Amino acid sequence: MSNSAGAFDALMAHQRQTFALGQVAGRLGWDQETMMPRGAADQRSDEMAAMESVLHARRTDPRVGEWLAAIDEGALDAVGRAQLRHIRRGFDRARKLPADLAEELARVTSRAQGQWAEARAAEDVPAFLPVLARIVDLKRQEAAALAAGGDPYDALLDDYEPGAKATDLEAMFTALRDPLVDLRAACLAQPMPRGLEGRFDEAAQMELTQLLARTFGYDFSIGRLDKAVHPFSSGSGRDVRITTRTNAHDPFNCFYSTIHEVGHACYEQGIDATYLMTPLGQGVSMGVHESQSRIYENQIGRSRAFTGWLYARMRDAFGDFGIADEDGFYAAVNRLQNGFIRTEADEVQYNLHVMLRFDLELALISGDLAVGDLEAAWNDRFKADFGFVVDKPSNGCLQDVHWSVGLFGYFPTYSLGNVYAGCLHQAMRAALPDLDAQLAQGNTAGATGWLRESVQRHGGLFTPRDVIAQAAGMEPSEAPLLAYLQDKFGRLYSI
Amino acid sequence: MSNSAGAFDALMAHQRQTFALGQVAGRLGWDQETMMPRGAADQRSDEMAAMESVLHARRTDPRVGEWLAAIDEGALDAVGRAQLRHIRRGFDRARKLPADLAEELARVTSRAQGQWAEARAAEDVPAFLPVLARIVDLKRQEAAALAAGGDPYDALLDDYEPGAKATDLEAMFTALRDPLVDLRAACLAQPMPRGLEGRFDEAAQMELTQLLARTFGYDFSIGRLDKAVHPFSSGSGRDVRITTRTNAHDPFNCFYSTIHEVGHACYEQGIDATYLMTPLGQGVSMGVHESQSRIYENQIGRSRAFTGWLYARMRDAFGDFGIADEDGFYAAVNRLQNGFIRTEADEVQYNLHVMLRFDLELALISGDLAVGDLEAAWNDRFKADFGFVVDKPSNGCLQDVHWSVGLFGYFPTYSLGNVYAGCLHQAMRAALPDLDAQLAQGNTAGATGWLRESVQRHGGLFTPRDVIAQAAGMEPSEAPLLAYLQDKFGRLYSI
Repeated sequence: MSNSAGAFDALMAHQRQTFALGQVAGRLGWDQETMMPRGAADQRSDEMAAMESVLHARRTDPRVGEWLAAIDEGALDAVGRAQLRHIRRGFDRARKLPADLAEELARVTSRAQGQWAEARAAEDVPAFLPVLARIVDLKRQEAAALAAGGDPYDALLDDYEPGAKATDLEAMFTALRDPLVDLRAACLAQPMPRGLEGRFDEAAQMELTQLLARTFGYDFSIGRLDKAVHPFSSGSGRDVRITTRTNAHDPFNCFYSTIHEVGHACYEQGIDATYLMTPLGQGVSMGVHESQSRIYENQIGRSRAFTGWLYARMRDAFGDFGIADEDGFYAAVNRLQNGFIRTEADEVQYNLHVMLRFDLELALISGDLAVGDLEAAWNDRFKADFGFVVDKPSNGCLQDVHWSVGLFGYFPTYSLGNVYAGCLHQAMRAALPDLDAQLAQGNTAGATGWLRESVQRHGGLFTPRDVIAQAAGMEPSEAPLLAYLQDKFGRLYSI
Repeated sequence: MSNSAGAFDALMAHQRQTFALGQVAGRLGWDQETMMPRGAADQRSDEMAAMESVLHARRTDPRVGEWLAAIDEGALDAVGRAQLRHIRRGFDRARKLPADLAEELARVTSRAQGQWAEARAAEDVPAFLPVLARIVDLKRQEAAALAAGGDPYDALLDDYEPGAKATDLEAMFTALRDPLVDLRAACLAQPMPRGLEGRFDEAAQMELTQLLARTFGYDFSIGRLDKAVHPFSSGSGRDVRITTRTNAHDPFNCFYSTIHEVGHACYEQGIDATYLMTPLGQGVSMGVHESQSRIYENQIGRSRAFTGWLYARMRDAFGDFGIADEDGFYAAVNRLQNGFIRTEADEVQYNLHVMLRFDLELALISGDLAVGDLEAAWNDRFKADFGFVVDKPSNGCLQDVHWSVGLFGYFPTYSLGNVYAGCLHQAMRAALPDLDAQLAQGNTAGATGWLRESVQRHGGLFTPRDVIAQAAGMEPSEAPLLAYLQDKFGRLYSI
């Protein structure tokens, strides 16, 4: 064996073990949200810290640099080169970040989540500002260290969406913003469709949500579905678990959370088996991940065709709930309402929430916005896009956990995922002319099969942008998403 | 800070992190038996191997040796010296075992469990013999490496029962064997007490078994109870989980498995909080562990007083099940029957099963018994002690998983635990004159409080033998166990 081949094999063995340890750490997180006894929290943070310490040591292991230097990249195939791309990127990032900064960030953000929750409960922005100021300061230091002369925000964004640039996102989002503000206002000017009435048995919700998960192709032999306070998907490869929640008055919360998480989970479950436990063996970016969860949830799950099938299932499970027919049900599923909360927003308003956060965090990281001015900036922007006034901080700048745990550069991937989903949906419709007929039968196999083949199976083989461009047959653009939303909600609201 | 104090602090920080990682690995095991999707098995073994590799590297980390050398033991208090005793012992053992032998053992035994299960299902001893021969050979190599000139079997035993010697165990077991053979025969010569009749709803079993766990002091705020194929207790400190199982025709299986595991779990939950996440923060040996599980299960749980309380709870839960009164119920709980299987044996016969395995594994490790002669030796010994003939290998030498996973030196700790429980029970009765009155009310707080105070809270502070000797006020001996069994079963069977 050549020196290069030996180095490549040693590097990949090291990566497989690191990947396995990452899965273990991830499963601890799952356990914490689903199974852990409440009195175990302190011990669990020691356990998580120990795993993080092990993982950090492996990510910065000098042997990785030696192996990388010894490998003749020209001798590798495309898969091998893609592996190297991921490994080199991770190694460079880990080595660029000073250890004391990483430790300080971990220390501050681990406490800040609780401080944020307290401030939110007390509607007390000033109580949270010193914490947030410290986090912004540390993240700016991190950004500077990672950017090495480049754009600081892009350096943070790169953690979630490798290769993405804030300027590109800004261009997309600018093109979306005004039309969505207009579409939103036009919809809300029309009479509001009727919503669901009554109580929906929570055990029956769990039963139907399991059927939904299966219907969308979630493989329970390598996954499981539990209840948790916040729905999430966790794990890669052959152990990808999801959670959901139930609310007796709002079964859509359970069903569409499940479909969303199934989208994430099917991406992980659908990756080519030969990539398992390697850097290619997980979703390539948050944006591509979100494209899968959102297209499952919205373009498929909230389509007229699929909701027709779901209406019948819900009638079977719950009897009469005040909706007379499939069209009324479709309108109820897609009903727009005024609201403050991002996570409760419909397809039209969701991206407006995300863009607000994106612009504010860009300004925080660049230094154009002081932490002390954040609340006013949030409230002004909200009034501009949504037309009414934020009534309290828990409905405004304290509503999301992200910044308190140091997630800057994460928010825009939600809308990027929607943009990607719009591109994919356009191509999928072209490829599957009888898609609606299938969905009306509760058959998602055509749609999910196309997504698996076009996107999911590739894992980390291509860059995020490339995998979407190849699948969609076009450079990613906001145009298909906007056209889809204007068409769908224009019809629904007779605009 | 002195060089010694600095080394001690660094060593303890290292140990805490290693302990935390050990807890993580243990919880993976729990997950595997309770929650893991079936298709995740291969990935899980990669994850476990990665954790083992991390733990092995930490256990043999040369810095541990340097810290140990730099510490002035005379400057430490008793707790510090006890920590050092555990750390030095673990480090010496880890360093004595050649890495290639440890890897080969892990490789062979991880496959052997499946091969054993297949051989057992096929009743095919010859199919398993080559595997077993390889394992015995490797364990003899391990024993020689660890013993460093001392007794090889003791070196293996030391892994589970630090400081124990096979010659001491042999003396105890020899003193037990003939009287137990006689007691067994005398009981079985009497009319057999009536057993339970009917079906016992499994959901109601789970409800009552939760009550039993609480009744015996299991703290659900730092634990949880799930179903699994084999009952077990898992974890230390503030996250100690147990499992049980149900059988519609045999509720005692569920209830007494639960009480047994609660004994193990309460030992872990009851350790002094200042020892958490250190080498002192877990049960000190398998024998002491088993003393807690067995005294909870038998001397308390199967006592006349406690079974009176349980009888009323079972009547409430299940109605009439063919037992007329408390005395009849006590007899049913403690009924002797002929049987081949260790794990199903009553208090009288259980130790005979264990001693059989102990004598055979001693001979296998010493080389006095060839693997090819194992089945005949097993069957001869069984006939001698139990008076009837083993009908098939799954009822004989293929019944237990232990040897296939390399557990040599483990079996005798089961009976040692019973011997310890006998000593503790005698002292507990002397200390708590109204114990039966408490137990008759379903109040175990006196008994479990005495055990927590006398044994559990100490964790690893004392040697196994010392903690029992101090609690029992006597050097450990089989005499109290034998007297207890002869008295209890003599009365029950009117011998």
